[in-house]
Amino acid sequence: MSRIPVGILGATGAVGQRFISLLAEHPWFQITDLLASERSAGKRYGDVVKWVLDAPLPASVAELPVRLAQPGQADARVLFSALPAAQARELEPAFAAKGHFLFSNASAYRMADDVPLVIAEVNPEHLNLIEIQQANRGWEGFLVCNANCTATHLICTLHPLQLAFGIEQVMVVSMQAASGAGYPGVPSMDLIDNLVPHTYGEEKKMHTEPLKILGALENGRVRFADFHISAHCHRVPVLDGHFEAVSIAFSRAATREQIVEVFREYRRLPQELGLPSAPDPAIVVREAMDRPQPRLDRMTGGGMATVVGRVRPCNVLDWRYALLGHNTIRGAAGGSILNAELMLYQGRLS
Amino acid sequence: MSRIPVGILGATGAVGQRFISLLAEHPWFQITDLLASERSAGKRYGDVVKWVLDAPLPASVAELPVRLAQPGQADARVLFSALPAAQARELEPAFAAKGHFLFSNASAYRMADDVPLVIAEVNPEHLNLIEIQQANRGWEGFLVCNANCTATHLICTLHPLQLAFGIEQVMVVSMQAASGAGYPGVPSMDLIDNLVPHTYGEEKKMHTEPLKILGALENGRVRFADFHISAHCHRVPVLDGHFEAVSIAFSRAATREQIVEVFREYRRLPQELGLPSAPDPAIVVREAMDRPQPRLDRMTGGGMATVVGRVRPCNVLDWRYALLGHNTIRGAAGGSILNAELMLYQGRLS
Amino acid sequence: MSRIPVGILGATGAVGQRFISLLAEHPWFQITDLLASERSAGKRYGDVVKWVLDAPLPASVAELPVRLAQPGQADARVLFSALPAAQARELEPAFAAKGHFLFSNASAYRMADDVPLVIAEVNPEHLNLIEIQQANRGWEGFLVCNANCTATHLICTLHPLQLAFGIEQVMVVSMQAASGAGYPGVPSMDLIDNLVPHTYGEEKKMHTEPLKILGALENGRVRFADFHISAHCHRVPVLDGHFEAVSIAFSRAATREQIVEVFREYRRLPQELGLPSAPDPAIVVREAMDRPQPRLDRMTGGGMATVVGRVRPCNVLDWRYALLGHNTIRGAAGGSILNAELMLYQGRLS
Amino acid sequence: MSRIPVGILGATGAVGQRFISLLAEHPWFQITDLLASERSAGKRYGDVVKWVLDAPLPASVAELPVRLAQPGQADARVLFSALPAAQARELEPAFAAKGHFLFSNASAYRMADDVPLVIAEVNPEHLNLIEIQQANRGWEGFLVCNANCTATHLICTLHPLQLAFGIEQVMVVSMQAASGAGYPGVPSMDLIDNLVPHTYGEEKKMHTEPLKILGALENGRVRFADFHISAHCHRVPVLDGHFEAVSIAFSRAATREQIVEVFREYRRLPQELGLPSAPDPAIVVREAMDRPQPRLDRMTGGGMATVVGRVRPCNVLDWRYALLGHNTIRGAAGGSILNAELMLYQGRLS
Repeated sequence: MSRIPVGILGATGAVGQRFISLLAEHPWFQITDLLASERSAGKRYGDVVKWVLDAPLPASVAELPVRLAQPGQADARVLFSALPAAQARELEPAFAAKGHFLFSNASAYRMADDVPLVIAEVNPEHLNLIEIQQANRGWEGFLVCNANCTATHLICTLHPLQLAFGIEQVMVVSMQAASGAGYPGVPSMDLIDNLVPHTYGEEKKMHTEPLKILGALENGRVRFADFHISAHCHRVPVLDGHFEAVSIAFSRAATREQIVEVFREYRRLPQELGLPSAPDPAIVVREAMDRPQPRLDRMTGGGMATVVGRVRPCNVLDWRYALLGHNTIRGAAGGSILNAELMLYQGRLS
Repeated sequence: MSRIPVGILGATGAVGQRFISLLAEHPWFQITDLLASERSAGKRYGDVVKWVLDAPLPASVAELPVRLAQPGQADARVLFSALPAAQARELEPAFAAKGHFLFSNASAYRMADDVPLVIAEVNPEHLNLIEIQQANRGWEGFLVCNANCTATHLICTLHPLQLAFGIEQVMVVSMQAASGAGYPGVPSMDLIDNLVPHTYGEEKKMHTEPLKILGALENGRVRFADFHISAHCHRVPVLDGHFEAVSIAFSRAATREQIVEVFREYRRLPQELGLPSAPDPAIVVREAMDRPQPRLDRMTGGGMATVVGRVRPCNVLDWRYALLGHNTIRGAAGGSILNAELMLYQGRLS
Repeated sequence: MSRIPVGILGATGAVGQRFISLLAEHPWFQITDLLASERSAGKRYGDVVKWVLDAPLPASVAELPVRLAQPGQADARVLFSALPAAQARELEPAFAAKGHFLFSNASAYRMADDVPLVIAEVNPEHLNLIEIQQANRGWEGFLVCNANCTATHLICTLHPLQLAFGIEQVMVVSMQAASGAGYPGVPSMDLIDNLVPHTYGEEKKMHTEPLKILGALENGRVRFADFHISAHCHRVPVLDGHFEAVSIAFSRAATREQIVEVFREYRRLPQELGLPSAPDPAIVVREAMDRPQPRLDRMTGGGMATVVGRVRPCNVLDWRYALLGHNTIRGAAGGSILNAELMLYQGRLS
Repeated sequence: MSRIPVGILGATGAVGQRFISLLAEHPWFQITDLLASERSAGKRYGDVVKWVLDAPLPASVAELPVRLAQPGQADARVLFSALPAAQARELEPAFAAKGHFLFSNASAYRMADDVPLVIAEVNPEHLNLIEIQQANRGWEGFLVCNANCTATHLICTLHPLQLAFGIEQVMVVSMQAASGAGYPGVPSMDLIDNLVPHTYGEEKKMHTEPLKILGALENGRVRFADFHISAHCHRVPVLDGHFEAVSIAFSRAATREQIVEVFREYRRLPQELGLPSAPDPAIVVREAMDRPQPRLDRMTGGGMATVVGRVRPCNVLDWRYALLGHNTIRGAAGGSILNAELMLYQGRLS
């Protein structure tokens, strides 16, 4: 089939660049629109972007013009949003109102009642909120969000455990990569010979987003999952790849072997459909006690898989494990793209 | 008074260097003996040491000869041990048998029934195990241990909480500095753009040492504290300063204000006696949510204090906080020296 | 004597903080005025500063109010300027016109004909330009600049060589610390597993400032030194301490022993007068081929000395050496303070 | 054609791993033999290797047995050597004597008169030394070396300049990645907030290897190129990718445009033959003044190209530029493999 035209909102930022990198060779989508702020609008993308990825800027994209991020400026109906939260709050509804299909990595509307917050493996049925959203808001288009980068990988590991054993309590301590704050983001003086605890809303996102995503869609509303999460969040001197140390209490007894098996056998709709960006397996379990490690494991499954290790008993809750995932691929741009692939496959992008 | 001669076992390693740096200007102790392996014995210290501290090698110490770490080679009765565990296992008893007073940072005998594992503020009464130790083993000298660097700072914060509220459960996730592994220690390829979970006994030490130190000496034995600890341990790209994220359940209800007050009012024997290495306050509470940070806070109290911050409620246990402490000062050499200062003050080093 | 009141222009930035840290316990100067932009003016310093030094914010300074950086707002006659270049260009003349004595770390006026660009050891006689400056500009006050941080330490090593052997050619390659760019400065994504060549004026400053400082004041003008400098400049993942690899061609033959001796015997006016911030020795020569190193050597002489090593023959020019110096102490705030100490000693600050 | 069996000497080290990673999917070669020290011999490769590359260990190679690195243990005639210098000195001649074709990354025999030191683009004609080598030493096999990692990329840029303009003098200052020292290699305490000048033979290699490789084979001997090189070498906190700042004096005048054109048009035998590992272009010139950078540019041409930038005039010599190249791909394993590809293409591996 011919490729579907797509645009990127916030194309010059770090997540915008990741969208470009992942979409440049995409079999189903073709980048046609790059939208950004006034500073860049009207110029050639290659002339305005400060490219920060080690994968090179695709030559064909470098030639594209940047347009102002405003409704009416985008030809593509499907838009991926890498906007900062404040701009997303204003612009995403405006685009959706004009009939665009928005897949957003921004935090602005993640917790809105009628906005599906979706990880394609975990809760694709929440996409049915779109009808309610369109009715509520009078939109022809829609807005689908993906979760915070740190929450995404945690949820990817909680889901199979929830299905198998039920979850009562989750304690998670994150060691997050610098790229999670975008560019310029964290000053180097903060991360040379240092780490920085998170001050702002990161822990709050970790306390709420998993409960929405792991909740049930009932009568047009998401009934949140009812376990408790305590998240301690930190920034560490790593470029890409969020590491999380997890302790968990289950509703039903589990053995180490069962837990590992449940992770390894976790195959869901994206894997069954063979979506282009779906990692298979979705979760990779490593046996060595010194894994996962960010540098060595973040590109597992092309950066779309979650890597788990160190499954061992906990003296306080029931079990413990460590997880690692790429924060700007699966945790941001790649997660949005996978959502769009699923909806395209399901015929919901036309 | 004239200064007491002291020696250092394992003088060329990273912790040995820290002993030297802290003792070079000490008001009560004078370095007279440097003991190391065959590789260095017989040579001038300045010619064999690969000095790794930013504080410069004291010129007077550089001139001292290195002797072989064997009983009979040390003139000083008081010895500080920075030996690796395997060598400590063999050599420390041999020195104690010859009448030396050993203050050891090694892990070899920390958990032995008749070896006091002491933090001067927390359990100085455990030093009374020495009589039993000497009777058991027929030693004229003795062996006193200090705790693992990561455990030490955790314990420094648990003790006032235990006294005030009682402790039921502790969850702790460490982000430990490279210097905790000594020199050469962790390869740089492991800590550039990366972090490494601990594979070996670090978590086990965290599960046991606090319970011994926070236990009660009864009838010549330590009755271990009976709460549960779950420790997840990791190495991060930081030079000095271990950071720990803690969640804790108390026996009795506590408010944030009470917790902060309990930390701030924690003054114990070393502070009351004004021992030279005693930090005062022992615990520093910082209010900013982005503190403590290793680079900014590790030298608090000359590297002898523990810095606490981020006191906030926990969704799973009761309360949460973060702590930071210098791993090779209070967490290693400085802790040993403080123990020796206390015993010298009490007249037990003669 | 009672301490002289001084103010700091641009007090909240990274160099402003270094001024505060160095002046808080200064025997001759007392901080009375903190001046900054509108964002901070009118507030308590401790409430607005994002303190980035590992030395803690002095408690007495935290209580001071911040005033707007405008003439009329400062009580102190002596002002140290840590302003960004653009603001310095506008504000420094305004303050000097009002009678203030400005010691500026900014680059704005370094190369102006009637502004002395001074390293206290190297060209104190250039301070006589002040009379011409005051006559030219009708100022009651004056403006004295110190050099770029990378140039400063190079010049400190060139001066004794110039005096002893004459200089024909200098090739210098810098590896500069992150703090040289201030805070927030360099994004951490640029310096994790990476280094960045300098794009802007850094190399140009290195090509010109040394020639002015090493030039002769003749008939009211500086006749620039007439050798050639080629500087390649780079930012590396180091917090503090600029490292420079130097090759040099002399006018007269030199031996290794002579070069080392010339460095070691370099004592100048600040050392002879025993100024409070003067390092003595001014240049420290280290023999080990793997020194200097930023972390180990930058605090030599309290961060005011320049450390030299690796003196060895060059296959292209005559001799080679490496140097290291603290960029925000001697290379910025400390250099300004030493200039002020010299002028105070000489009775020129009243 | 069916793939040629090859073996790797020193298969468990960091360079050995890079050989495996590059050869696992090679169209012409197939890994059949993994040879290492007694510690690993007799075990499954996947069980003994501490894999340090972010590219995962190929599953098929993990299953191979490791044999003792001794003649008689290797079935493959073609061997790639990643041995440490001391072991290479002993073992490489022993293997060559037994008829093996050795492509060595070790430094032991690089400067031997009858050993070709080859970069495939630069001096393939030096491979004719093999006949003399075999005659001299009575070997059925042979030994071909590739250059030091830092020298390799310098030479790749010097060669086109030598051809076009002639070279008189070269000044080069390196900032080398940690992986150049292998694993465990550089301690992390040396590279956190620090850089380390090279103490050992690195500068000497830079002074001699380029002159041999850029020399002419005349009457069975290499007449060394006769220009002068001054190399200052340093280790910086970067994982992969050596950066070098170069100043150069030419025999004939050159313009910036000519230099850039000469770099861009540099196509040699490997490019003309389309050898599998040959980068095309061999040299990539980047225009932005802040490039090359290690993290962004090291994988150019699959890690086989050299990236050049910052071409600008020099105040001391004639011109300046910066270069960057991957040290363990083109600078080590990849360079050896390219040499082997060339000889296989030429029919000299049978």
